[in-house]
Amino acid sequence: MGASPGGRSRHAADNMLCCLSMKRYGKRVAQKAGLEPGALIHIGEKRLAQTRFTIIDYDAQSFDEKTIDEVEASYAFKDTPTVTWIDIQGLQDTITIEKIGKYFHIHPLLLEDILTTGQRPKMEDLGESIFIVLTMFSLGDEDEILYEQVSIIIGPHYVISFQEGEQDIFGPIRERIRGGHGLIRRLGSDYLAYALLDAIVDNIFVVLEKLETKIEAAEEYVLANPDNTAIQTIHNLKNEALFLRKSLWPLREMVSQLEGSESDLIQPYMERYFKDLYDHTIQVIETVGTYWEIIAEIRDSYLSTLSNRMNEVMKVLTVFATIFIPLTFIVGIYGMNFDYMPELRWHAGYPTLMAGMLVLVIGMLIYFKRRKWL
Amino acid sequence: MGASPGGRSRHAADNMLCCLSMKRYGKRVAQKAGLEPGALIHIGEKRLAQTRFTIIDYDAQSFDEKTIDEVEASYAFKDTPTVTWIDIQGLQDTITIEKIGKYFHIHPLLLEDILTTGQRPKMEDLGESIFIVLTMFSLGDEDEILYEQVSIIIGPHYVISFQEGEQDIFGPIRERIRGGHGLIRRLGSDYLAYALLDAIVDNIFVVLEKLETKIEAAEEYVLANPDNTAIQTIHNLKNEALFLRKSLWPLREMVSQLEGSESDLIQPYMERYFKDLYDHTIQVIETVGTYWEIIAEIRDSYLSTLSNRMNEVMKVLTVFATIFIPLTFIVGIYGMNFDYMPELRWHAGYPTLMAGMLVLVIGMLIYFKRRKWL
Amino acid sequence: MGASPGGRSRHAADNMLCCLSMKRYGKRVAQKAGLEPGALIHIGEKRLAQTRFTIIDYDAQSFDEKTIDEVEASYAFKDTPTVTWIDIQGLQDTITIEKIGKYFHIHPLLLEDILTTGQRPKMEDLGESIFIVLTMFSLGDEDEILYEQVSIIIGPHYVISFQEGEQDIFGPIRERIRGGHGLIRRLGSDYLAYALLDAIVDNIFVVLEKLETKIEAAEEYVLANPDNTAIQTIHNLKNEALFLRKSLWPLREMVSQLEGSESDLIQPYMERYFKDLYDHTIQVIETVGTYWEIIAEIRDSYLSTLSNRMNEVMKVLTVFATIFIPLTFIVGIYGMNFDYMPELRWHAGYPTLMAGMLVLVIGMLIYFKRRKWL
Amino acid sequence: MGASPGGRSRHAADNMLCCLSMKRYGKRVAQKAGLEPGALIHIGEKRLAQTRFTIIDYDAQSFDEKTIDEVEASYAFKDTPTVTWIDIQGLQDTITIEKIGKYFHIHPLLLEDILTTGQRPKMEDLGESIFIVLTMFSLGDEDEILYEQVSIIIGPHYVISFQEGEQDIFGPIRERIRGGHGLIRRLGSDYLAYALLDAIVDNIFVVLEKLETKIEAAEEYVLANPDNTAIQTIHNLKNEALFLRKSLWPLREMVSQLEGSESDLIQPYMERYFKDLYDHTIQVIETVGTYWEIIAEIRDSYLSTLSNRMNEVMKVLTVFATIFIPLTFIVGIYGMNFDYMPELRWHAGYPTLMAGMLVLVIGMLIYFKRRKWL
Amino acid sequence: MGASPGGRSRHAADNMLCCLSMKRYGKRVAQKAGLEPGALIHIGEKRLAQTRFTIIDYDAQSFDEKTIDEVEASYAFKDTPTVTWIDIQGLQDTITIEKIGKYFHIHPLLLEDILTTGQRPKMEDLGESIFIVLTMFSLGDEDEILYEQVSIIIGPHYVISFQEGEQDIFGPIRERIRGGHGLIRRLGSDYLAYALLDAIVDNIFVVLEKLETKIEAAEEYVLANPDNTAIQTIHNLKNEALFLRKSLWPLREMVSQLEGSESDLIQPYMERYFKDLYDHTIQVIETVGTYWEIIAEIRDSYLSTLSNRMNEVMKVLTVFATIFIPLTFIVGIYGMNFDYMPELRWHAGYPTLMAGMLVLVIGMLIYFKRRKWL
Repeated sequence: MGASPGGRSRHAADNMLCCLSMKRYGKRVAQKAGLEPGALIHIGEKRLAQTRFTIIDYDAQSFDEKTIDEVEASYAFKDTPTVTWIDIQGLQDTITIEKIGKYFHIHPLLLEDILTTGQRPKMEDLGESIFIVLTMFSLGDEDEILYEQVSIIIGPHYVISFQEGEQDIFGPIRERIRGGHGLIRRLGSDYLAYALLDAIVDNIFVVLEKLETKIEAAEEYVLANPDNTAIQTIHNLKNEALFLRKSLWPLREMVSQLEGSESDLIQPYMERYFKDLYDHTIQVIETVGTYWEIIAEIRDSYLSTLSNRMNEVMKVLTVFATIFIPLTFIVGIYGMNFDYMPELRWHAGYPTLMAGMLVLVIGMLIYFKRRKWL
Repeated sequence: MGASPGGRSRHAADNMLCCLSMKRYGKRVAQKAGLEPGALIHIGEKRLAQTRFTIIDYDAQSFDEKTIDEVEASYAFKDTPTVTWIDIQGLQDTITIEKIGKYFHIHPLLLEDILTTGQRPKMEDLGESIFIVLTMFSLGDEDEILYEQVSIIIGPHYVISFQEGEQDIFGPIRERIRGGHGLIRRLGSDYLAYALLDAIVDNIFVVLEKLETKIEAAEEYVLANPDNTAIQTIHNLKNEALFLRKSLWPLREMVSQLEGSESDLIQPYMERYFKDLYDHTIQVIETVGTYWEIIAEIRDSYLSTLSNRMNEVMKVLTVFATIFIPLTFIVGIYGMNFDYMPELRWHAGYPTLMAGMLVLVIGMLIYFKRRKWL
Repeated sequence: MGASPGGRSRHAADNMLCCLSMKRYGKRVAQKAGLEPGALIHIGEKRLAQTRFTIIDYDAQSFDEKTIDEVEASYAFKDTPTVTWIDIQGLQDTITIEKIGKYFHIHPLLLEDILTTGQRPKMEDLGESIFIVLTMFSLGDEDEILYEQVSIIIGPHYVISFQEGEQDIFGPIRERIRGGHGLIRRLGSDYLAYALLDAIVDNIFVVLEKLETKIEAAEEYVLANPDNTAIQTIHNLKNEALFLRKSLWPLREMVSQLEGSESDLIQPYMERYFKDLYDHTIQVIETVGTYWEIIAEIRDSYLSTLSNRMNEVMKVLTVFATIFIPLTFIVGIYGMNFDYMPELRWHAGYPTLMAGMLVLVIGMLIYFKRRKWL
Repeated sequence: MGASPGGRSRHAADNMLCCLSMKRYGKRVAQKAGLEPGALIHIGEKRLAQTRFTIIDYDAQSFDEKTIDEVEASYAFKDTPTVTWIDIQGLQDTITIEKIGKYFHIHPLLLEDILTTGQRPKMEDLGESIFIVLTMFSLGDEDEILYEQVSIIIGPHYVISFQEGEQDIFGPIRERIRGGHGLIRRLGSDYLAYALLDAIVDNIFVVLEKLETKIEAAEEYVLANPDNTAIQTIHNLKNEALFLRKSLWPLREMVSQLEGSESDLIQPYMERYFKDLYDHTIQVIETVGTYWEIIAEIRDSYLSTLSNRMNEVMKVLTVFATIFIPLTFIVGIYGMNFDYMPELRWHAGYPTLMAGMLVLVIGMLIYFKRRKWL
Repeated sequence: MGASPGGRSRHAADNMLCCLSMKRYGKRVAQKAGLEPGALIHIGEKRLAQTRFTIIDYDAQSFDEKTIDEVEASYAFKDTPTVTWIDIQGLQDTITIEKIGKYFHIHPLLLEDILTTGQRPKMEDLGESIFIVLTMFSLGDEDEILYEQVSIIIGPHYVISFQEGEQDIFGPIRERIRGGHGLIRRLGSDYLAYALLDAIVDNIFVVLEKLETKIEAAEEYVLANPDNTAIQTIHNLKNEALFLRKSLWPLREMVSQLEGSESDLIQPYMERYFKDLYDHTIQVIETVGTYWEIIAEIRDSYLSTLSNRMNEVMKVLTVFATIFIPLTFIVGIYGMNFDYMPELRWHAGYPTLMAGMLVLVIGMLIYFKRRKWL
């Protein structure tokens, strides 16, 4: 997986509340006050210095890969029979993106969606192409969950992908295309789009595996050390799971629409692949659901453990206090300075008292034993 | 956003229970006892000294804006081919509103809905026009959530909007119309209505952004200071989220009906816009749902923190008590005044005892260390 | 609202568990063992000494109101073109009710429903008439929630209403009919039935307003005084809300069926009115749902407050105990009677010790200050 | 209701986990390993020494009742126009039951259902007959909830009922048939089956009434005595409610299917009766749902009460400890044996000290009063 | 049930988080990076040294059983009219499995599902065959829950089953086939597949019976001993129930699809059998649901018990402390060394004081008795 130097990608954990794009939306309103819906402004962090355009053009026989500077260079590929993958990394160059929108007939409101990160995953059949927007998850250098928005346009002979940053989880797909073997070279743009989506969903499994490791570690730590760190750990895990859960629900809907799509752009034999993708999505969602419940369960056990410890502490205190407080009272009696206290004069007074107190202690210990406090 | 001097708008937080218009309904029954359903009385606070009528009439070429005193002046615009926006601020002038109702064929029960604030958002297709009622949210001067009821009637060439007060979130739309560029001047009354609704929904994002800021502040404060203020803070946040959640659910339903409407009043190309509006509504609802869960999570963490602190306090008490109470007992013994206590006579008695107690203390410290109480 | 002398109406709060008619059903089984379903026995309290029959017969021009002794006197009105409202208060006179059933073709099982209070609200289209049973809520003299069962039969020219007691919430409707103006005199039996239902639903708003007042009072009290009274208050509120919630859910279903009914008995122009009634019902239900969550929220805050107070108390105890217990130990040491305790002989021993203890106290106070216990 | 001597019926409370027939199923697998599905073994307790066959044959004019030894004696009744009710009590005689199955064309898998107690209630339309299996509830001698499985086969002129034991809740139906009056003699086998089901559902009301009495008693006890007995009481009630809830959900489904059945075996006029039965079933389910929530509410109140008591106890302890621990320290000071302690020599030392301590105590009492701890 | 030597099967309890195949999936991605979807790698533990192929071929008259080394030997059976059961144990031999896939026309993505353990149960109608994948549960030697993935392919005259390991729960089915009697020899491959599924579902009942025993033991232990072991026990039970619940939900869906399937491969008379299977599946799910709630209930009762014990402990401490602390103070007073303390000189001073303290103690005991602390 590509490195993301300089922490350019957002961290799910730090920034959890953003998950449903609140902040950016708020800003949108502020930045766009008085503008029409559909006006194109990039809402989100600029993660790359410059927008990068990569074109991969292939069919079973031929293969061509190049980086272009001007988007116009890609227009030639629109109607060629070869499959063309136009990959756009970085969204700040709104003018170019508007040009693409015009050339490939993308409605301004959808272009706005591409540029405004934090969209709910959705799929729209535009007739001559299919528009998809979804969130891509990956792991950062310190195992934090990174996410960015990916938009995909599927045309008859082309696929356009828009990425915010440079987490390159599509690398293996490029390799497969370059390799020249395999289905990907023999099938069309629909298979290429499927391959991209499959890579994104597979990557969620990687993220979940890491989350699982954290949950397992937390489970062990929390039950052994019910302290403030434990609270923080659970709190963070719950927020991460919440974040994933909220993001994945609309994903399922989108993949389901894709599977059931009757668009001419998707060949009948692709149904099996999208079905497989859907199965994986369901599995991802159920897994997050399970994690959610496990974290809740860990918190419940944490609270039980804490209550239990408190109980233990209280028992120790009570046993000590109830044994020694009466004894202290007794020795206090014989510390009094009354002139006439006959016991003080007895020769056996001291040892008798000590023995008496010993009996008292033994009696109380037996009592506590019976009450199961010891 | 327009100022709302004198706190004329209701505050969601103070007045939370009103959200479903209980109080006003209660009053309605009291005020209207013996009246027929459909009798027009304004139920709600009078927020403006006088009802204001503003008319904006435009098409791609022409533009006219004026404030009128008598509603009859607006009748002329009903059938002109230009788009007319009749904006009515203040609902106390029931006679005029009844006149409008008659002229534009609005059923008395719907007029009652316009006047009785606290309605559930709903949309009704009346054939010759579409009736919409919904709640508009905005932020007050002190970042409190204000809300008021807005009703919109969409006709073939006109839009009538009824506002309770003067929070002017429609200002940018007026600017866009005045500006003369943009789609709004080229398209019809359906686009104008969409623009109004879009402004209302966008404003909810502003409100949510503020709520998020509060939640983040609360999260930090609560976990660091689990005190009474924290309880109050969580309590208030939960009530605000509850209030929003309850208000937004019916909004979704209404926008969904609008999107799926087959009314002739809405041009086919508007479907894309209403779909976008619907997406935003869903996003708003999911965001509030997330906030709801985060607040619940904060309370859970609060309680965990509190339990944990209690545990800490108890441990300190127990350690102190269990170490010193036995020691006090021991010194109590040698404070007794028995005539025959041989230890008291020993020269080394005092230092020996002190050493013995030191050993005891060390032993107990080791014990507590092992139990992880220190 | 009519007085209910002698507490004849049931109180929801006291009698909460009855809400789903358990007790009465239990009794039914006991009383009816061996009887066929459909056998008519009045199950419920006798709230009136005698069943009262009131007949109001009207059309746009004429108006007639009388109280009759024998139900047969009402038969003449069945087929007259004027609208006839036969209002029956008190259900103990089963023979008469059976007669009505026979004359107006009501199935014995439905007559059984009329007589067996505690039915779920339901509506049944019998072809020549519509049968409705629902629960009517009102406030008693001491603001307690009263409820009784109301059954309504809507025929082509007549409406028959069966009430258990004498809470007269239909008074305003009678006034409107007597008044002679208004829609009610111009429209048919369907509008009369709507007016009755609307009065019942409007009255629920009155009940809810009172409940809201109680909740607000409880919210304030509970958070300030987390004592036993608070527990009882929350417990009672929760039970009242539970009672309302359970009763209102089937009401919604019933009103919905009525709205969607295709019976010839209901004129097309009534649809708007029943739609309005349905909106009010939804609003009532959502309000109760909100109350439910607010009460749960109050309990949560109550528990938080309690935990917090406990924490405060424990801190005070711990601070006192951990400061004074060691000090007591120290003074205990110098209260020992060893012959050889050099410190006791020192001239500066006493002031030195006192100073030392002062230093210790100051040190501990600083420690507690840092731990934020003070 | 028939006695169930010797505790032959299962007790819901003791045996709660069995509710979904786990144990029996487990045993089935063990007993049946290697057998085909459909092999007939009676899984369940043998509750009667011998299977009993009772035949009641009637129409409006004639009536015949007899007990037979061999099931073959019942075959003659299959095709007679009179209604025949074959009641089989005790399920251990699998050979006979297999014979019946063959003669009345019941699929082996359904016969297996009859014999394997603990089935989910279900209804199946077999064309020439309708097969129903459900759970019957009744109260035992000590008000415990008993349950057993009842299977009913409805044919054109016959009804076959299979009971596990001898709780005779069908007695009143027999009486009604013997009595000769009433609908039951005039109508067919569908009405007889309805009467049986109605008796079973009515009996659930009896069980619920008892449960309600228990809940009310628990509510009172628990809030007054938050002790271990209270925990056990709530635990048991919750388990009973859980048991009922789980059993009744599928019942609703079954009755609903029956109501909507288009079988020729059920006359159109029976629809009203099955509708009534369905209404009762819904009422039963809603009641159990309400109980469930009330029990949860009782537990919540229990925990609140407990927390509150703990708080009270802690306050008392803290008040005592914080008042007397400092005082004890002070008197300890003057118990020290330093040679030079000037206060000890003062004549007014002792009364001055006592007065000082009194002032201290009063000060602390005022402090605690202000904190509302007293 | 076959032994599983060497703990080759996974343990649900230890490995709970794997339930939704996270780990394996994670590995899949790592192992398969750059491979196409559909590339065949066995993901899972190798549980058997070698893949085993067993062929059972039968019809009503003939029977043949053999173990083969090369999968090609099974091809001959594909089109014979006899029913052939090809049972494959061990999944590491991917080449052979690929051969089977090709010969029997199984899509590579489905072969991938067979090899990648941890699939959600699903059923797919491939036209010429039906593909099923599900999880098989069984009990290990130490009553731990084992699970492995089973895939079944149903063809017109053959059934292919793929098992991961060697838990041989299909033994009784083999016996029934060998036995030569029974339906299994007379019916086709659809019945054989049903028999396999029925065996798997029946085995879940065995697992649930064991779980129930554990729950019952836990219930007893936990309420009597609310200690750390109890927390761990509840935690483990909850995880086991969670694991089962999550696995069984998709099973229900799959069986439901199978029941409703309109494939030609399933004879109409099989509907009754699949309906029975579906009923059992529902029963299994409801049972797990009940267990889930019972475990939650046990935890609630555990926490109540713990709170209650804490309360008990606190009461004991408070009673002791509030009685003896004041007494200790009093005796402390008379331990002071003031020169002028007249009481000390009184002859009756000592006994008077002792009597006074006795009165005080009795007074406090009465007070505590009244407060129900004793």
